Amino acid sequence: MRPVPSREWRLRSRPVGRPRDSDVELVDTFCPPPAPGTVRVANQVMSVEPYMRGRMGGEATYADPYPLDEPMLAPTVGRVTDSAEPSVPIGSLVLHDLGWREHSVVPVSGCRILEHDDLDPATHLGLLGIPGTTAWVGLTRIAHLEAGDVLFVSSAAGAVGSTVVQMAKRMGATVIGSAGSPEKVALVRELGADAAFDYHDGPVKDLLRTALADVGATGLDVYYDNVGGEHLEAAIRVLNDHARIALCGMSSIYNAAAPQPGPANLLKLIWRRARMEGFLLEDHLDAREDFARQMAGWIRDGAVRPVHTDHPGRVAGAWAAFNGMLDGSSVGKAVVSLA
Amino acid sequence: MRPVPSREWRLRSRPVGRPRDSDVELVDTFCPPPAPGTVRVANQVMSVEPYMRGRMGGEATYADPYPLDEPMLAPTVGRVTDSAEPSVPIGSLVLHDLGWREHSVVPVSGCRILEHDDLDPATHLGLLGIPGTTAWVGLTRIAHLEAGDVLFVSSAAGAVGSTVVQMAKRMGATVIGSAGSPEKVALVRELGADAAFDYHDGPVKDLLRTALADVGATGLDVYYDNVGGEHLEAAIRVLNDHARIALCGMSSIYNAAAPQPGPANLLKLIWRRARMEGFLLEDHLDAREDFARQMAGWIRDGAVRPVHTDHPGRVAGAWAAFNGMLDGSSVGKAVVSLA
Repeated sequence: MRPVPSREWRLRSRPVGRPRDSDVELVDTFCPPPAPGTVRVANQVMSVEPYMRGRMGGEATYADPYPLDEPMLAPTVGRVTDSAEPSVPIGSLVLHDLGWREHSVVPVSGCRILEHDDLDPATHLGLLGIPGTTAWVGLTRIAHLEAGDVLFVSSAAGAVGSTVVQMAKRMGATVIGSAGSPEKVALVRELGADAAFDYHDGPVKDLLRTALADVGATGLDVYYDNVGGEHLEAAIRVLNDHARIALCGMSSIYNAAAPQPGPANLLKLIWRRARMEGFLLEDHLDAREDFARQMAGWIRDGAVRPVHTDHPGRVAGAWAAFNGMLDGSSVGKAVVSLA
Repeated sequence: MRPVPSREWRLRSRPVGRPRDSDVELVDTFCPPPAPGTVRVANQVMSVEPYMRGRMGGEATYADPYPLDEPMLAPTVGRVTDSAEPSVPIGSLVLHDLGWREHSVVPVSGCRILEHDDLDPATHLGLLGIPGTTAWVGLTRIAHLEAGDVLFVSSAAGAVGSTVVQMAKRMGATVIGSAGSPEKVALVRELGADAAFDYHDGPVKDLLRTALADVGATGLDVYYDNVGGEHLEAAIRVLNDHARIALCGMSSIYNAAAPQPGPANLLKLIWRRARMEGFLLEDHLDAREDFARQMAGWIRDGAVRPVHTDHPGRVAGAWAAFNGMLDGSSVGKAVVSLA
């Protein structure tokens, strides 16, 4: 076995505000053969996700910052081409975190052999992967969604949001979604939402009140928050008693260089006896395999529809794909085919 | 039975910002004899509480606004002097809501005969009443306080806060309290807090970090919030993983005429997988009797110490007492002896 040529993205400086092209560099290098306990993987598809912006910055969040001058990380699906470890044979389809490159040498402790090999590899990064499982955990374990509940989800055309819409409908909820373009709003409706709006069309609080009226409801039982900011304040305004807010992400502030003020109406959480709870998937990994099995069945049945944006350009396009995802140009799960 | 002379406070206009003397009027009137199904009560002591400010304003909160040109309401303890209902005989000590007056005619459905008649009547408005039960519900049912937890409570010399400090210590927590004067801070320490600070002494975030260091801790497992605003943001800053925030009150904003921005760091609720939950005692009335029995025992044993401020002036002093409580001049439960 010999080194194979591979290109990879390295972090050169920590972005402040919107990331710039000078913060990263695409480097031509070689991927060495696997040492004992590792496998070499030809990467097929990688994920770009909002949380990566936080890890590029220097501040400690829930995950360590990416080191400077090293290749960045990303959930990636690939096929094992060389193995120095019998438990992961050549030909296995695996999920690992050493993305932003064409070939990876992955320790077996850092990769997982994927079931459901028949599905589109991108599905393992979307519905079966972090976004799908995150949607499920937020709905069931954090928001305790019940049939008959009225749910609002922001970024409803996004990777998590498009799954929340579809799952919440299956669970018997009335679903309202917001998104950032007429095309996305149309998609959200196609996915089954009872009402959807483009948040550019006015103050979110007004758009949300109109949407509630359209579905014959006066308040929200659940808000699945992917954006924070104005959306969060608008949702708090119309909570029903004992409502639950699942805090999944705050894309409205990831790119903000200065702290943004929070909602001015938190007192309403008391009046409404409402709960707001943040969560991370890493606390819920026990759910992953059972959930993936159930979701794979729904996908094969056509009951849940994968929604992906595959950004062009292969590995060279990954940085533009990341920034496009941050700017909202993706629909559903944003991925980059690497081979 | 004939009418008895009685003075009562009527709401004349809805306060905007800080309440003014012209918003209310003390009226000389007569309290009629009890009609069937009611009792007449000679009121001994009434409570003044922050939530009353909200009910004086016109905005619908969790409770209806007080009607204009009628006597206001307040939890009140008194002795039945005339009864037109055998189930509540003359001489009964009762709790009812028709305060802000010397004598009340109370429907039996709106009063409760009090056990623990041996204790100071004000205790029924404090440790055994709404503040004490609220402290207990927030600690046990909302924050799920456990032995070994590090807890921070704001308004720690207040009616709820002084009870939270004492109960949390009994439950095995490390307790940090904030209050608004050196005298109050001294009281909080006397009540058993491991650290306490005066929030006027600097940014709350700095004072809280110092207090944490003083008790050998790096973060909070529980924040019992009575004030909102800067305190809430400072607490969110130093949450431990899986921390819980019990939102009990937001005294920092009750008097604010304009909405105050919320904490700028809500993203930390995600990183820390933290929960923030508002609650109202009315959802937890099932706890009341059992809790009162337990607390009455602790009071008789000296294990928990009642902390009251009895404002002077009898009924005529009630308005000044209310405003003094809002301004923070009370320690512990603010009450007004009426007779």
